[in-house]
Amino acid sequence: MPTTLKEFESVWPRIVADLESHCKQYKLPQQSLDWFVKSLNYNTVGGKCNRGMSVVDTSSILLNKTLDLSSEDYFRAALLGWMIELLQAFFLVSDDIMDASKTRRGNPCWYLAPNVGMVAINDAFMLESSIYLLLKKHFRQHQGYIDMVELFHEVTFQTELGQLCDLLTAPEDHVDLDNFSLEKFTFIVIFKTAYYSFYLPVALALHYIGAATPKNLQTSLDILIPMGEYFQAQDDYLDAFADPTVLGKIGTDIQDNKCSWLINQALKRVDPEQRKILEENYGRKNSEQEAKVKTLYHELKLQEFYQQWEEERVADLRAKIDKVDESEGLKKDVFEAFLKKIYKRSK
Amino acid sequence: MPTTLKEFESVWPRIVADLESHCKQYKLPQQSLDWFVKSLNYNTVGGKCNRGMSVVDTSSILLNKTLDLSSEDYFRAALLGWMIELLQAFFLVSDDIMDASKTRRGNPCWYLAPNVGMVAINDAFMLESSIYLLLKKHFRQHQGYIDMVELFHEVTFQTELGQLCDLLTAPEDHVDLDNFSLEKFTFIVIFKTAYYSFYLPVALALHYIGAATPKNLQTSLDILIPMGEYFQAQDDYLDAFADPTVLGKIGTDIQDNKCSWLINQALKRVDPEQRKILEENYGRKNSEQEAKVKTLYHELKLQEFYQQWEEERVADLRAKIDKVDESEGLKKDVFEAFLKKIYKRSK
Repeated sequence: MPTTLKEFESVWPRIVADLESHCKQYKLPQQSLDWFVKSLNYNTVGGKCNRGMSVVDTSSILLNKTLDLSSEDYFRAALLGWMIELLQAFFLVSDDIMDASKTRRGNPCWYLAPNVGMVAINDAFMLESSIYLLLKKHFRQHQGYIDMVELFHEVTFQTELGQLCDLLTAPEDHVDLDNFSLEKFTFIVIFKTAYYSFYLPVALALHYIGAATPKNLQTSLDILIPMGEYFQAQDDYLDAFADPTVLGKIGTDIQDNKCSWLINQALKRVDPEQRKILEENYGRKNSEQEAKVKTLYHELKLQEFYQQWEEERVADLRAKIDKVDESEGLKKDVFEAFLKKIYKRSK
Repeated sequence: MPTTLKEFESVWPRIVADLESHCKQYKLPQQSLDWFVKSLNYNTVGGKCNRGMSVVDTSSILLNKTLDLSSEDYFRAALLGWMIELLQAFFLVSDDIMDASKTRRGNPCWYLAPNVGMVAINDAFMLESSIYLLLKKHFRQHQGYIDMVELFHEVTFQTELGQLCDLLTAPEDHVDLDNFSLEKFTFIVIFKTAYYSFYLPVALALHYIGAATPKNLQTSLDILIPMGEYFQAQDDYLDAFADPTVLGKIGTDIQDNKCSWLINQALKRVDPEQRKILEENYGRKNSEQEAKVKTLYHELKLQEFYQQWEEERVADLRAKIDKVDESEGLKKDVFEAFLKKIYKRSK
């Protein structure tokens, strides 16, 4: 049985208490301590926690038993999961400033919350630092400690490279479709999303249960990176074509000049006249121009193409999963569980 | 012989080449690679490099020999020094955004450089990530590797706590002298400056030469943290009382509402009428009000008090240095070299 958000969140107060007591040991003035705790709660809790929960679920599958919520095993797997949520909070707080976003999870972005402003940058740093503080406190004696530290470093840097490439390729205020390419799209997706959202949870679970052999890590990478690519293409597809009432939000990729899967597929297919339509209407902040781009997407039959492409990607992933060597403790079920959550999702 | 800035800087291109080749291995698109290299050079090079060079000098003193510039020993000590400079670059790029600063080292702050803007936040992250990438590449086999990684984590978090407390205690746009206290001043100085500027270089050198025993680290901490406190008080004193032509800049602490050593000493000494003068004139962006605060500083004889206080602090530090136990490889000379650079400096 997969863990629930309620179970996963029940661990959080203990994590905050750990971080608080670490600060108290430094005699941090109360005003600053209160601020840090507020930032931790505001920025880390309230999402779907898919990434964090998948550390618990992957560990359960690998250990072939449901981790009991009251056990120390559950706590430690969930703690590793919360570290991914802290990493994501670090990215989201700062991405929202860089993208000049307004809301996040139905609330004002942290930097727009009362009296916060650019202090949010330092708050983002502290969310990141919390990861290593928790790793040291709870895993210093674990055989995989230094590997987990290095894993977080590497995935953090990879995500930063993806973010850099995204910011340079698709600045919100300067449209230049020549700057787009499927290669850059792929780089951005793999580095900005796939490593930390797909590979990291499984790699952490493997380290946690002591099965992080080079072969198991490589197999995980070989399946989860393409799965992350598929996930992002699907995300981009849903942004343009899903029913907003089902999706739960209105897609803005076209107006936001995003280097999305759809625009890159369109650019591969357009004739010079159609390209002109994209040049003149993509990345503009108004809905008539957005509609012209969507009409062209329909003319290029991108919806049908996506659906066919999706079936191929999924068949490919299933074939890879089928070939997983379980002799070093890895399990096909780990990847099937991921795929099941993604395939045919509508939001 | 202490190392020179020219020698220390001669190592830098090799460090950039390391970081570049790491990115190339990820197939980072060229535009992003060029950006990263530009940010590395713009933000890390061009300062006095006192912190970085002191890793080389401390290592030389501890090893009782001048490290030869062409040796691998020099490179590795300098590399650790450059990691402190990278850490500082990470802080400065982001501090400048948080403080809305305009210039740094005579150039526009990075976030104000052409076409940079808020991308600077992600660039700051990448400067920090570079530290761990270099540590892994060059020190993974070193006996002190994990200790050095943890040291950077801890000092980073400490500096972030100091920055948080500073931002909350002395926001530039909201004067509230009730919020100031010598305790907060001390917390801010120790956490925001002393750990990374004074303790970190010596602790790294001790790890590097293999003499980072608990006792040596504790002795270093016991001397270098008070030395950092003294250094910052002196910095605050010079901001108000040094000749700007000698100091090389015009002090702005009073107008900037800084929680400085001087204002906290003043607050301890004022009568209610004098306190009113501070309430009405501190932290205001104009030079007449600033002059009223300075006149009060003179009336309170803060200049004389500082000079007497400095003599006491220095005598205290000398007494501590004199008692250093050199039996585990630490040397008094390490601390004397630091003190010599600070005592009676005029800029």
